[in-house]
Amino acid sequence: MKKQVSTSVIKRLPRYYRYLGELLNCGVERISSKELSEKMGITASQIRQDLNCFGGFGQQGYGYNVEYLYGEIAGILGLNSRYKAILVGAGKMGQALVQNTTFEKRGFTLVGIFDTDPEKIGEEIKGIKISDAKNIKEFIEKEKPTMAVISTPRTVVSQVVRELTDMGIKAFLNFSYAEISPDDDVVVENIHLSDSLMRLCYKISAKGEKKSDNEE
Amino acid sequence: MKKQVSTSVIKRLPRYYRYLGELLNCGVERISSKELSEKMGITASQIRQDLNCFGGFGQQGYGYNVEYLYGEIAGILGLNSRYKAILVGAGKMGQALVQNTTFEKRGFTLVGIFDTDPEKIGEEIKGIKISDAKNIKEFIEKEKPTMAVISTPRTVVSQVVRELTDMGIKAFLNFSYAEISPDDDVVVENIHLSDSLMRLCYKISAKGEKKSDNEE
Repeated sequence: MKKQVSTSVIKRLPRYYRYLGELLNCGVERISSKELSEKMGITASQIRQDLNCFGGFGQQGYGYNVEYLYGEIAGILGLNSRYKAILVGAGKMGQALVQNTTFEKRGFTLVGIFDTDPEKIGEEIKGIKISDAKNIKEFIEKEKPTMAVISTPRTVVSQVVRELTDMGIKAFLNFSYAEISPDDDVVVENIHLSDSLMRLCYKISAKGEKKSDNEE
Repeated sequence: MKKQVSTSVIKRLPRYYRYLGELLNCGVERISSKELSEKMGITASQIRQDLNCFGGFGQQGYGYNVEYLYGEIAGILGLNSRYKAILVGAGKMGQALVQNTTFEKRGFTLVGIFDTDPEKIGEEIKGIKISDAKNIKEFIEKEKPTMAVISTPRTVVSQVVRELTDMGIKAFLNFSYAEISPDDDVVVENIHLSDSLMRLCYKISAKGEKKSDNEE
């Protein structure tokens, strides 16, 4: 049984997981909340509070056992799952996603890639052939993937998501410009590059940086 | 002079901006907070509260003038700025970023692309030639870009960021696996695909979805 954990803690867990993974790679066996705090830019008390949600992995005067904590967080996040995933839209961004992302370490196995472009169909990315999108229903009925990465043009996103939901897809990683709203049936993670650019633009403006253009 | 606006409101502004842009494209001239609320999945009172931060663009019984509000949010975010940006790391992800992202509409102009791979140097992406990373210092001194998109292998990220900061870069859009921590000198937006995947994995697990693998 999973304990109920607040959304804000869950949001931070992947970051803890990444940091702990880096520490493991460097051969670090244990770390205090204070050291972790300095590395991550979170207060030590926040770290203790976050990690205590799962039953106090730390020991007074010893700190956290990195490998143990790493494993526990993997368990909480469900990263040992092997949810089947498909990629819908094999444009440049979709292809880069597949090339750069280790789905297996994040709880997923990529089992299919779909596109409508005849020039792309039949090509292979990381050993998976790009299939014709018109065969997607048959594929989903057979393979029963849980998740779809959406990397289609924005104009078709809402239709594609509706159809995939009807076919049984339960989760979306949305990489398109359009937004997918979660509802009772599906869970969603939206990644909006344009929003990040806009927030960065705001941060620069707010900091009162002079525009380089004005300096010329 | 910019008013101080809370981080959480700023976080939502790009989403408002995207939605309003879509409405504009569809020829919608005005919209009530209620309608916007239904589209965006935010409460109407939250919307009114958010937008009132900037001085009440809405009119009782009329709603918001879409074009006006769109322009005002652009102004608040500073999207009419033309901060010069460079891309560091022209791998598949870096290239897809440049191909898929309209920097110009988000306050930036991409002026240079850098990589260390001799096979990539000299190639063009969207009309910009990939330059040898060893010439980056000279380029920055001359062009004075404000922002760098980081899409390098994780092992070199911290060194690259340190060097770029020393050369005068003030903002980073981080697309690498490693994290860049903001400090007093620089502002940062981190985009972590792996974190999004992990959060999605958690959401699926938490929903108690059966793994497709177990159903076979």
